[in-house]
Parts: sequence; structure tokens; C-alpha cells
Amino acid sequence: MRIQAGIEQPASVNPVLKSGLQKFKKPKLNIEQLAKDILKGKRSSLSQGITLVESSLPGDKVLAKQIIQECLPYAGNSIRIGITGVPGVGKSTFIEAFGNYLIQKGKKVAVLAIDPSSKRTKGSILGDKTRMESLSVNPDAFIRPSASAGTLGGVARKTRETITLCEASGFDVILVETVGVGQSEIAVAQIVDFFLLLMLAGSGDELQGIKRGIMEMADMILINKADGDNTSKADLARREFENALHLFPALENNWTPIVRTASALYSTGIEGTWETINEYIRLTKENGHFMLKRSRQSGEILRERIESALMDDFYNDPELKEKLKSTSKEIERGNLSPYDAADELLEIYLDKKNK
Amino acid sequence: MRIQAGIEQPASVNPVLKSGLQKFKKPKLNIEQLAKDILKGKRSSLSQGITLVESSLPGDKVLAKQIIQECLPYAGNSIRIGITGVPGVGKSTFIEAFGNYLIQKGKKVAVLAIDPSSKRTKGSILGDKTRMESLSVNPDAFIRPSASAGTLGGVARKTRETITLCEASGFDVILVETVGVGQSEIAVAQIVDFFLLLMLAGSGDELQGIKRGIMEMADMILINKADGDNTSKADLARREFENALHLFPALENNWTPIVRTASALYSTGIEGTWETINEYIRLTKENGHFMLKRSRQSGEILRERIESALMDDFYNDPELKEKLKSTSKEIERGNLSPYDAADELLEIYLDKKNK
Repeated sequence: MRIQAGIEQPASVNPVLKSGLQKFKKPKLNIEQLAKDILKGKRSSLSQGITLVESSLPGDKVLAKQIIQECLPYAGNSIRIGITGVPGVGKSTFIEAFGNYLIQKGKKVAVLAIDPSSKRTKGSILGDKTRMESLSVNPDAFIRPSASAGTLGGVARKTRETITLCEASGFDVILVETVGVGQSEIAVAQIVDFFLLLMLAGSGDELQGIKRGIMEMADMILINKADGDNTSKADLARREFENALHLFPALENNWTPIVRTASALYSTGIEGTWETINEYIRLTKENGHFMLKRSRQSGEILRERIESALMDDFYNDPELKEKLKSTSKEIERGNLSPYDAADELLEIYLDKKNK
Repeated sequence: MRIQAGIEQPASVNPVLKSGLQKFKKPKLNIEQLAKDILKGKRSSLSQGITLVESSLPGDKVLAKQIIQECLPYAGNSIRIGITGVPGVGKSTFIEAFGNYLIQKGKKVAVLAIDPSSKRTKGSILGDKTRMESLSVNPDAFIRPSASAGTLGGVARKTRETITLCEASGFDVILVETVGVGQSEIAVAQIVDFFLLLMLAGSGDELQGIKRGIMEMADMILINKADGDNTSKADLARREFENALHLFPALENNWTPIVRTASALYSTGIEGTWETINEYIRLTKENGHFMLKRSRQSGEILRERIESALMDDFYNDPELKEKLKSTSKEIERGNLSPYDAADELLEIYLDKKNK
């Protein structure tokens, strides 16, 4: 059934769909049929659904909402794994080795990416054509490039909705790669069950790209490139990280973050990684933290989405925009407390609202 | 001039002021005179100013704003140090030793506390009467208990405004102790220049009270109780923490967090702590990060205050409150995406506003 393997093309580079949208305006889509086909595991339908989710056209947004609505009751049954690490750590080599291993174990694997900074039309996963060659031709793998650039919140939303569609379509392991740096790790942590940080042996320079706080978010640290001359260095790094994690307070879910070594290139440490993830899933499903985490994530998403919309509405008010400029200067000069400044701005805004 | 030494009493336990407020309603306060007296270093005026800042009476809020406004141009010249650590780590013994040392060096030291959870009427610093005995009678020290319980944001605001008044009144070192656990460290980090984490030798259990992420916020870790049999254990802990911090990425301000040992009880390690803080101040003043941090803190405070007021306005809307209940259930059941739920709620709210 899944004959159309390989890397999925986003709408922007799919000439058929593009001309369809442009020439004939919105072609009447049968959402119910599309949902049924997604549930049956039809790849082209899954791609079409994701394209809707990623679209910024108002009409598409309505359809996207419907398709999400149809798929939601059938979603949620995958293990969602976030994978991060600085450029050069070997993320794609690892995902390829790990993905192929999981497929051998009978899993269906979807690979998504969060990259709000991406300006490449083909999305980041496609940026390097040699990436994930063997995984991309595997019919049990589904690789979807990152949605085109946008706000982090927007990209995270699209990725999470894409997870819903992939799960409804029968994928049981979802790998979400962070391609950007900094804030995107936090966005990924909010939509996955397990957070894997890839590292290299040797500290210092290699860490520059990792935001402070990321290490404490990791459920597992994997020291990659533990091969050849690098093996003993990697082992030393593993012990160092173990000692460091040991100093951190225990996690609420009773999980102790694990440090392992791997060589994605030689496919060592791959099985151990999967075992660790399974131990985590087993533990957290037993103590209830697996579902608790997902439920909290939903709550956080709801809250953050409301927050950002309210803040946008406030900061886009022309009168407040003007006032904010002078206010900021006064704060900077030390003539106005930021609390009093906020109170003044809020009075203007809320007065208008309650008129 | 500073004859009225000792621990300041908050308004709630000051019977004179209390009856003044209640019996005669608002006694006409000459704010200009009060500000002048604060600037002259008059302790009773400083206490009166802080009482205004801490008051939740609407009339007092207006006066508080005026007094802050008068003092702001003369504030900002202290070193603001946040001090945190789990209960039992020896925070008050350390603050007493450190405060007395600073006063010997010719400094004027104010000790404040952030404790949103405090339900003790006398404030947390007064909770234990034996605390800071020698410091509390020193005329160059000013110890102010935490404002009475409230939201963390509210308590942080009062503490920051109290810092402004203390600075205007000539205090050059402000020690802000976190008494609560969890979020209060983040609130403190937002109003101080330097963040000191007190720890004990031996990891594990002692760390339970420390929130994950706090260690990465620390500019310095001080292993306390490095005395007697504990000395070598403390040294080992110091090396462990040094190794752990070494694995963290460098700070933007070029500062490398320092780990030291101390015995607050025997007053060892106190001078070294002050040296480290001075090195930090020198470095960050040279590279501009000292003022940059303060300026960013003001920006964050402005933003967070606006955010929390907008969120309050949203979540207190009776219609939305009702709708949120059913919506949350639908999300929980997996029938509704939190994004779509947020969109629906926002539409109701913003429609009303723009009517």
C-alpha cells in the first residue's frame, strides 16, 4: 500500500497541487474521504493533509482544522522522540541509523523537523541531498521536511498537527529533529514524550551552540562518534556527563537521565538507545507520568497560544506602540519603574476594551 | 543618624501606623518630605516608604508610586546579590557572617527576602528569632522581613521597589534571600545583579529542594558547612560542581561560574565570596553586561507584568471561564486540539473587545 516512499515534498514545490490551488482556486476537497484515506495509511493522502496543515491560506486553515478534528480520535499511539544537538554532532546520520533499526523491529517511523529559521524552500531535511539516503527510500519511513519559515510557535503548531496526522496514519515512532538552535529545543520538548540530546566528546567549544538549560531538559544524553580513536574520549565524556547529571535534582517522574555512547556511522549504540527509551516509556506509563506529561503539554500549548495572541493584540495597538517607545526611554533613563510603566500602558489598553 | 537599628517591622505589626491608617483614614503624608528623609538615610522614613510600597490599599498605591518616582533617580548604585539554597543549607548564618564582613569593609547592607508562600505574620526573616542576631543590631544593616504572602509577581515587585528605596537611602549592598522554594529563585534572578547558590557537600537528597535549572542560573556556587569532618567532603563537592559547570556552555557575559567552599559558622570563605562577586562586577561593568542585564531585567518585568494582567483579564471573563471548563475536558479526551481550542476562546474574547 505504501508504494510512494521517499522524502515528501512540501506544497510549495509540488507543481500539480500548486497550480491546482492557484488556477482553479480551492478545489472542493472531500475532507471525510481524505481523513479515511489517511487512517488507511495512504501516503499521498497523509502528504495532502500535512500540506493543508502547513498552508497559511485562510480557506486551507478551515480544512486543516476539520482534518485534525477527524484524525484526533485515532492519534496519540506513537512514541514521540525529540532529537537535538549542535550542527556537526551527526543528527541525520543518527536518525538514519536509528530509523532503519526501528523499521527492522517492525515499526513505522516518521521523521519531522522543527526549524523556524529555515529559509530554504525545500525545507531543512532536504537541504543536504545526501542526508538519510537509505531511510528516505524505505516504504515504512516517512520523512517530511520542516514547514517553511515562520514564528517558532507557528512552526511548532504545524509540527504537532503533523504528528497527529502521522499517528492517525499508523506511524508508531515519530522522530522530531530540531534544526534551529536555541528556543526550538524548548518547543520540541513541549510536543514529545522523550528528549534525546546528542553530544560530542570534549566539552567547551562543541557546547557553544547548546543553550544553557538544554542539558537539564534531556531524558538521555548520547555521546555520538564513539568510534576509532575517539572511543576512549567518548567514554570519558560519558562519565563526565554522568557525574554532572548526578548533581542535578531528581526528576518528578522518577526517571534518572541516562548517558550512553554511540557511533551512528557504525550503527553501534543504536539498540541501547531504543532500550533506554523503552525503559523510560515503561516507567512513566506505570507511574502515570506519561499521560500526565502529555496532558500538561496540551495545557501549556493552550495557555501559550492564548498568551501570545493577547500579547500580539496589545503590542500591535498603534497608540500603545507609540506610548511604549517613550516609556521604554524613560525606563532606560531610570526615571520610571517598569511596573508603573506597565500599569500605565495596561490602563490605556483595558480602558479601551471595556468601553 | 542611624540609631534605630534592628529588624524592621512591617506595617501589619506596627500598631501606631496601623491605627493611624484605620482610625484617621489616610493621614496626609508629605511625600516630598518623606523622599527627602529617605535620601538623607533616615531609617524610620525608609521603613515608612517600604510600608507604603507593601501596602495593598488603593490610596497607598498612589503614594507608593510617587515615592518610587522621587527615589528612582537616586537609585541603582548598589550591588544586588540574590542568595538561594535549600532549607538547612545555612542561608541566614551565611548572610549574618557576610553582612557583618561587608559592614566592616565600610558598606551599608540591606537584607530583604522573597517569600510568596509566607503565611507567618511577622515575615520569614523574623520567623526564627535567633536568626541574624548580631547583624540585626548593627546600625549599618537594615533587615526587612518579606512582605506578607501574595502572588510571586506581587512579592517580587514589592521587593524590587524596596531595593529602589534602600538604594536611594544609601545602602550599597542589597542581599535578597529566597525563602520560598521553586519559582522564587527565578523571580530573584530577575531583580539582582549576581546570583549565589548555597549548597551542601554530598549530592542527592540535599538537592531535592532545588529546582532543576537553578544550578545553571548561578553565578557562583558556595559549598557551605566546609568545617570540621566535613571539610574534605566539601572540597570533593567543589571539584564535582566545577566539573559539572565545565560541561555547561559559556555565559554570554563571559563569566565562568565559580565554585567555592565556606563555613558561615566559622566565617571562612566569606572574604573569597566577596572577591568573586567583585571580580564579576568588574568584568561585567567592563564588557557592558552589567548595565545590559539591568536593562533587560526592566524589559522583562515590563513584559511579564503586561502579560500577567492580560492573562488575568482573559481568564477572569465569566463566559470564558465557563467555556474553558468544557474545552479542557474535550482536549483531555483527545477530541480537540489545544490550538483550535485556544483559537475558539480567543475569538470570543477579542470579538468582545473590538465591539
